[in-house]
Amino acid sequence: MISTPALVAPSAGAAFEARTVEHRDLRDDDVLIDVKFAGICHSDIHQVREEWGSAIFPMVPGHEIAGVVSAVGDGVTKYKVGDRVGVGCMVDSCGECEFCKDGEEQFCSKGAVMTYNGTGSDGEPTKGGYAQQVVVSERFAVGIPDGIELDVAAPLLCAGITVWSPLKRWGAGPGKKVAVIGLGGLGHMAVKLAAAMGAEVSVLSRSDAKKDDGLALGATSYHATGDEGVLKGLKGTFDIIINTVSADLPMQTYIGLLRPLGVIANVGLPTGNYDFAPGAVVGGSRVVAGSNIGGIPATAEMLAFCAEHGIGATVETISADEVDAAYDRVVAGDVRYRFVIDTATINA
Amino acid sequence: MISTPALVAPSAGAAFEARTVEHRDLRDDDVLIDVKFAGICHSDIHQVREEWGSAIFPMVPGHEIAGVVSAVGDGVTKYKVGDRVGVGCMVDSCGECEFCKDGEEQFCSKGAVMTYNGTGSDGEPTKGGYAQQVVVSERFAVGIPDGIELDVAAPLLCAGITVWSPLKRWGAGPGKKVAVIGLGGLGHMAVKLAAAMGAEVSVLSRSDAKKDDGLALGATSYHATGDEGVLKGLKGTFDIIINTVSADLPMQTYIGLLRPLGVIANVGLPTGNYDFAPGAVVGGSRVVAGSNIGGIPATAEMLAFCAEHGIGATVETISADEVDAAYDRVVAGDVRYRFVIDTATINA
Repeated sequence: MISTPALVAPSAGAAFEARTVEHRDLRDDDVLIDVKFAGICHSDIHQVREEWGSAIFPMVPGHEIAGVVSAVGDGVTKYKVGDRVGVGCMVDSCGECEFCKDGEEQFCSKGAVMTYNGTGSDGEPTKGGYAQQVVVSERFAVGIPDGIELDVAAPLLCAGITVWSPLKRWGAGPGKKVAVIGLGGLGHMAVKLAAAMGAEVSVLSRSDAKKDDGLALGATSYHATGDEGVLKGLKGTFDIIINTVSADLPMQTYIGLLRPLGVIANVGLPTGNYDFAPGAVVGGSRVVAGSNIGGIPATAEMLAFCAEHGIGATVETISADEVDAAYDRVVAGDVRYRFVIDTATINA
Repeated sequence: MISTPALVAPSAGAAFEARTVEHRDLRDDDVLIDVKFAGICHSDIHQVREEWGSAIFPMVPGHEIAGVVSAVGDGVTKYKVGDRVGVGCMVDSCGECEFCKDGEEQFCSKGAVMTYNGTGSDGEPTKGGYAQQVVVSERFAVGIPDGIELDVAAPLLCAGITVWSPLKRWGAGPGKKVAVIGLGGLGHMAVKLAAAMGAEVSVLSRSDAKKDDGLALGATSYHATGDEGVLKGLKGTFDIIINTVSADLPMQTYIGLLRPLGVIANVGLPTGNYDFAPGAVVGGSRVVAGSNIGGIPATAEMLAFCAEHGIGATVETISADEVDAAYDRVVAGDVRYRFVIDTATINA
């Protein structure tokens, strides 16, 4: 077994403890990764606090992982010691179903294995990136190109790919008007990526508080949606809306902001239902879509794009003893725009 | 002015009367079409009965028109006398906006002119295909290829293009599983077209009453959805669902029939709202889409496809004095699968 210092949530909602945890010995296709930085995703908080149903404890969260390969299994061909790699939300899948073959492993017919709070093919609970080392199959490690620092790369593995997928699927690019609802961890990446794709980007945020940031990130317009009348003035404007918020929004109103043939792609999970008149989509051939992370080939494509365009997440780097406080700040929306944990500070 | 016998609804819900109506003299870009057959679309009934808001009376309905060019304006280049042509839901648009230039005239920024119950650029109410002649700009006449008889071609101009658009947009073809909800005028065309595209087609209908027809039209399976448990057994099955019915359906249940990345495209207009949990679309990157007819280039493409594959609508040809009764039969779902009026029987 491989022992490594990690941040462990002993039970639902409890404070983190630095402990040594164990990973399996390397299998033929495994790589050992020395984790340098791990992003804090809001879904980490939901799972640590057991807000998404029964979870597995003790838990080592973290699915925005950036590090360096420090050992490889005998059969590994993709990576060698010293390679810079990332790991996102998944660490295994069947590899044989239609979705795996299409590089959409998140939809694996047998169920992809999540990076933490899942059960690996070895029968053990998976352990994520709030740790100094992780072990994953080389199939689920993605090379991080030179030119992206590891701290700003880590959040690309979840926040980045989550918004990349719908931007690509729905054709963001020159001549397209893209709106991003919510300027948080996901939203700030959506703005950067859509702008780099050549789209004309607008931010729709509740208040003007992040206006300067939104424009600096690449948006050309910013609309405070708490202001009555603002949404009315934007009717029929956008080709693509990326909705990153988990708050309940009046979906019919937002569909109305789309041009004919336009798409609102939702990546958040509000508690209330979407509720809209059929005519909202039928008349203008509009589309209400969902989107769930992205596969390994898309993740690699996204990272290459980010390297080419000099894009990383905008991060606030914290030490291991700041994670509990950081969770509260994420819930309060008080982070610009992603916390990443410097895993060297984990003292177990 | 050009006088022609037509079926006229004098007021909302009144019985049809055969009367002579007048069309404008041909403008440079106009063609005069001797209408041979006009399909009866359910939306004709909604408009004649003023169920969709205030309508213009007297009304000559009909936007599934097939006929032969009998005269052309001085500037007409696309057609000559004797050409077989069809007219669908639109007879004019600005021609200059982005949507018109893209061949999506139904989304014209200035508003497309509907074939009837609209106001033409001459300021006169438009008059549709329940008549022996119509006058339209050559831009909105579509050639009907040899090999499609005019009676079975007429319904292609609305029912055909309405389901063609989403089948094409969402990639129906070999290796794709397509379900069609409702086997009526639209649904029977969806089955024929999707099967000819090479997709594996299923019919979802309330009862088994149309099972033999569904299979004969090209479906390989047929499911009576009134039977408890049938929908449960179809979870995660389809790549594309074309929902042709205007009844309120449990949308979340039908979304659940989609595979990951699947699309339910709705062409009907139920009175109730769609209501579903965000997770229904987000988890599997699923899509709820609307679709509204199609543009002129797509209509031409659809007609060429139909000619190549020997596809026409399955029709019941009626005479002018049967239209009132036919309306009641359409509302009762008692038509297999489209009424077309033999316009030669209009005696005004």
